[in-house]
Amino acid sequence: MTTYKAPLRDMRFLMNEVLDYPGHYASLSNGAEATPDMVDAILEGAATLCEEVLAPLNHSGDQEGCHFKDGVVTTPKGFKEAYDQFVQGGWQGLSFPAEYGGQGLPMSFNIFKSEMMGTANWSFTMYPGLSVGCINTLMQYGTEAQKQQLLPSLVAGTWAGTMCLTEPQCGTDLAQIKTKAVPQADGSYKLTGTKIFISAGEHDLTDNIIHIVLARLPDAPEGTRGISLFAVPKVNVNADGSLGTRNGVSCGSIEHKMGIRASSTAVLNFDEAVGTMVGEPNRGLEAMFTFMNTARLGTAVQGVCHAEAAFQGALPYAKDRRSMRALSGKKEPENKADALIWHPDVRRMLLTQKAIAEGGRAMIYGVLKLGDHMFNAVAAGDQAKYKEYDSKLGFFTPILKGFLTEMGLEAANLGIQVFGGHGYVQEHGMEQIARDARISTLYEGTTGIQALDLLGRKVLLGSKGKCVRDFSLTMLQFARPHLLSRTPLGAMARNLTMRAAEWNVLTTAIMLRAPKDRELVGSASFDYLMYSGYVMMAYYWALQAEKATQLLGELDTVKAKSKGKSKLKDKAASEAAANAAQPAKGAESDEFYRTKIQTAEFYFDRLLPRANAHRTSALASTRSVMQIDKEHFAFV
Amino acid sequence: MTTYKAPLRDMRFLMNEVLDYPGHYASLSNGAEATPDMVDAILEGAATLCEEVLAPLNHSGDQEGCHFKDGVVTTPKGFKEAYDQFVQGGWQGLSFPAEYGGQGLPMSFNIFKSEMMGTANWSFTMYPGLSVGCINTLMQYGTEAQKQQLLPSLVAGTWAGTMCLTEPQCGTDLAQIKTKAVPQADGSYKLTGTKIFISAGEHDLTDNIIHIVLARLPDAPEGTRGISLFAVPKVNVNADGSLGTRNGVSCGSIEHKMGIRASSTAVLNFDEAVGTMVGEPNRGLEAMFTFMNTARLGTAVQGVCHAEAAFQGALPYAKDRRSMRALSGKKEPENKADALIWHPDVRRMLLTQKAIAEGGRAMIYGVLKLGDHMFNAVAAGDQAKYKEYDSKLGFFTPILKGFLTEMGLEAANLGIQVFGGHGYVQEHGMEQIARDARISTLYEGTTGIQALDLLGRKVLLGSKGKCVRDFSLTMLQFARPHLLSRTPLGAMARNLTMRAAEWNVLTTAIMLRAPKDRELVGSASFDYLMYSGYVMMAYYWALQAEKATQLLGELDTVKAKSKGKSKLKDKAASEAAANAAQPAKGAESDEFYRTKIQTAEFYFDRLLPRANAHRTSALASTRSVMQIDKEHFAFV
Repeated sequence: MTTYKAPLRDMRFLMNEVLDYPGHYASLSNGAEATPDMVDAILEGAATLCEEVLAPLNHSGDQEGCHFKDGVVTTPKGFKEAYDQFVQGGWQGLSFPAEYGGQGLPMSFNIFKSEMMGTANWSFTMYPGLSVGCINTLMQYGTEAQKQQLLPSLVAGTWAGTMCLTEPQCGTDLAQIKTKAVPQADGSYKLTGTKIFISAGEHDLTDNIIHIVLARLPDAPEGTRGISLFAVPKVNVNADGSLGTRNGVSCGSIEHKMGIRASSTAVLNFDEAVGTMVGEPNRGLEAMFTFMNTARLGTAVQGVCHAEAAFQGALPYAKDRRSMRALSGKKEPENKADALIWHPDVRRMLLTQKAIAEGGRAMIYGVLKLGDHMFNAVAAGDQAKYKEYDSKLGFFTPILKGFLTEMGLEAANLGIQVFGGHGYVQEHGMEQIARDARISTLYEGTTGIQALDLLGRKVLLGSKGKCVRDFSLTMLQFARPHLLSRTPLGAMARNLTMRAAEWNVLTTAIMLRAPKDRELVGSASFDYLMYSGYVMMAYYWALQAEKATQLLGELDTVKAKSKGKSKLKDKAASEAAANAAQPAKGAESDEFYRTKIQTAEFYFDRLLPRANAHRTSALASTRSVMQIDKEHFAFV
Repeated sequence: MTTYKAPLRDMRFLMNEVLDYPGHYASLSNGAEATPDMVDAILEGAATLCEEVLAPLNHSGDQEGCHFKDGVVTTPKGFKEAYDQFVQGGWQGLSFPAEYGGQGLPMSFNIFKSEMMGTANWSFTMYPGLSVGCINTLMQYGTEAQKQQLLPSLVAGTWAGTMCLTEPQCGTDLAQIKTKAVPQADGSYKLTGTKIFISAGEHDLTDNIIHIVLARLPDAPEGTRGISLFAVPKVNVNADGSLGTRNGVSCGSIEHKMGIRASSTAVLNFDEAVGTMVGEPNRGLEAMFTFMNTARLGTAVQGVCHAEAAFQGALPYAKDRRSMRALSGKKEPENKADALIWHPDVRRMLLTQKAIAEGGRAMIYGVLKLGDHMFNAVAAGDQAKYKEYDSKLGFFTPILKGFLTEMGLEAANLGIQVFGGHGYVQEHGMEQIARDARISTLYEGTTGIQALDLLGRKVLLGSKGKCVRDFSLTMLQFARPHLLSRTPLGAMARNLTMRAAEWNVLTTAIMLRAPKDRELVGSASFDYLMYSGYVMMAYYWALQAEKATQLLGELDTVKAKSKGKSKLKDKAASEAAANAAQPAKGAESDEFYRTKIQTAEFYFDRLLPRANAHRTSALASTRSVMQIDKEHFAFV
């Protein structure tokens, strides 16, 4: 069975050395408390919770699953106790305002925490994870009464929350929602309808569950402009926040799923359930989409989680299991065979996992700063700033969600592959990772939906390609000082420069053809998303390689501002930078930095070339997808 | 839940129209009985068994799984009755000689049959499937006594067989096998040891199970040259073939697996179990490898099975489920939303599945002819001819096994993806396909092992690239008449011509570098295998497109033998060919042929470009895989 060790060294490398989180936090109004010492203490506390409490319940939770009987859901053995520890540690409130009992830290802490928790036990993480969406919605759109009544318990974690969108007839297409909300004389509403696939929709971890429900008012217009948002508690809440009678919402059943079996996925029947409106009538979808970007970032993390988990599972096995001799000659003459890790193809698999986990982490941590700024603006009531950051974030989220979950699935499957047949049996825990990972490309918008959002909404309609131009400019600026370098970083910089141009050419080509061929966006979108993901991950790998090269004192660059081509071996300068960074540089760090550069090289050599295939497919004629009559797909 | 319809139209297209199986069977000494009428009757009989008996047990078998108690394995409800029908229909003996009670048909029937059975219910298919390996081994290497005693019941299917290779300490690396075989005074052997992962190792479907076991004699040399082969019955068999006492082999437990849960995977404990030697002492591995190629073809089929099953599951859902409006405008104004199949990205997924299922089927049916010839030579005792065909087959099998199982896994996962969240719940049956498919890249040699076999053994050591030169010559000869054609086939022919050259250049580049860099073969092998698979599938798609174009009367080619460039619109000629082919041409066939060409175009436009990425990765420096110290993969 797999165990979990939080990758604190890598997290600190990204936060302190590559991405300057100390500086970032200093720039936030709610970042003052996030001092390096505080950050360290939180990361270590979360690591302990994850390693010692959550990870040991991951396999047993999958084997046992959730139980359903007479409308009551019981979580697997140990989950309730673990959840109590989570609540007692104050972990739910980390990034929520002090006025509701939280610690008021920037929202990025929620992601650092949930990455560790999710790698240790994704099913468990779903329970508090869904509450976050509920809390954010109430905080932004709730009335003062709703906030006072509901938020303290939600932020404490003694209550949980859900997001109730999907109905039997519709998931992606929320225009088809049927659940009705009928206004009552006292200003409340009675909701009737069926919601399905409600994660954490019913469970035994908390005293109450607050459902945020999409429903229609009796006179609502058809389609997405007639959807309102309601807060519907499982147990009615008195004005003082104490619990009243049971509300008219019941759990009809839970799904039997491929994976995340310890996470309950409920069918919820609303039968004149009493709720209150959140936000304005008929503008529920707008409110729901406010936090779409952060919710999707929260799912993008799942790709990193499963890649990390599969890597942590496969690596020790590859070192311990001995099979065949290396083709290049005996490596362990004292043993009957060489360890798997000597075989190049096993290394290819391990490095693919590592490149996905660490590259994905860098992408998320890089983008997360925008999320911190966005939440800062929301808290400050600065609508313009909120829109600015939400729009910036909007370009990254479909790429991160779509690409990283697809890659996480690949990494999870490679975890099985390294184990060979042993990966297929349940006891080693590797197959669970692949089953758990499989949901990630489906919920919070399938990969296809992310792809349409990226290419159709964000790139073409939303910005006429500007978001790509902006990001590729960042790539060019990053690459320029290293273009003539003879280090591995130099090759990466030259590749990135080419990719920056190529990405824009691809975007422009699609932009020019799209008006003439209305099937183009749909038929190019998946490949465009994957292309964008590979190129963006390349940038984040190069960023890590640059810092590692600098900290090793091996930077060999043309100074950006010098007019001549004077090369500078800035050993002294980079050592100063290294000393400023945490932790102190030593032999172990040298190896860490060197491995970073080598993993980046692997990524550029072996994974990035796939971008070419996606580029070709994205540019292919739409005819190859559209010309077959829908009745001719099969002849049987 | 999914249902199954045998793709008879496609099977007949390949057998009768594209690959000339009637002519092929006429050239075989055991092919006389395989007349078109007979073939049709067999295909239809198998289809009925699969559609009506096996498919309905697929989901329930997965949900129930196998039961283990006190050494006894009980298969899921209905399996025993279905197996009895399989036996009564004489299906096990289809391709085995009449002298042992079989029908004496060419071996390809085994694959046609097992493709249908495996798509309907792969877990069930494992039971009779494992017997095939056992029967082939006894037929080739057994003594006359062993044959008379064991084969009639095995061929009838009233007994089953297994192949016992893997032990706890070794799977791929059979040199590490420890099971001992001690000779007895009466010429028999007593075997002691533990075998794991034994498919169909214990079950309740038959009265007896004959285990073919790899073990070491007391004085055997170390490594693979000290392994012998033994036949060890579960129940001892008297000289007359009747059952005696229980032998010393017992089932210790069965594995709890990710998928194929209705197939029992046993731990077998041999405790002085009595067996007889098969073949010569210390040459067991050689004997085992005789049928490696056909066993691997039998697993390659699994890729096609799961692609077909996932496609058959996803297609009706894509037609029925309505979500969103098509970006190119309302397609079903009478409904609230358009069916999924109108959306280009859903089509991309469906066509990927279709291209894999039908392209893979064409590859297997194409290569299968070599298998028929090989078995023909074995039956005739023609060692030279056997070696010739075995060697030809040896180039194709790792490509088919490695590539098609990887692609089958992709197609299975796309089946889930088309369903969205509904694909993740067990009741629709889509997630089962992905779980069942996951084993296929692991057993019968992982993809990595297939890749080493292809590049190291077959291409470089075995033929110095000749097998690639031979196959690419076939591609060139095929393409030449179509190079100037303006039909879609013309574009395919030009692409194939380029690929033929490119494949050889890639092979030569690796061949030249390999002696200087002993890590090259291992680090290039996976990508080389996938490259080869994509290019080979392209050829088989072009082959289908050519025949479809011809049968539509649209062939527009330069006659291969005419010196001038006279173009020939050979409508009359191709109609004559079409009339000769079965079934009669009609409007439905026109649509079938047109769709074939369109699916081929999809393959060339959207899947084949991936070959480029694999080519680039295969040519990348070995450094990117090998340079990281094995202790530096992780720092936690």
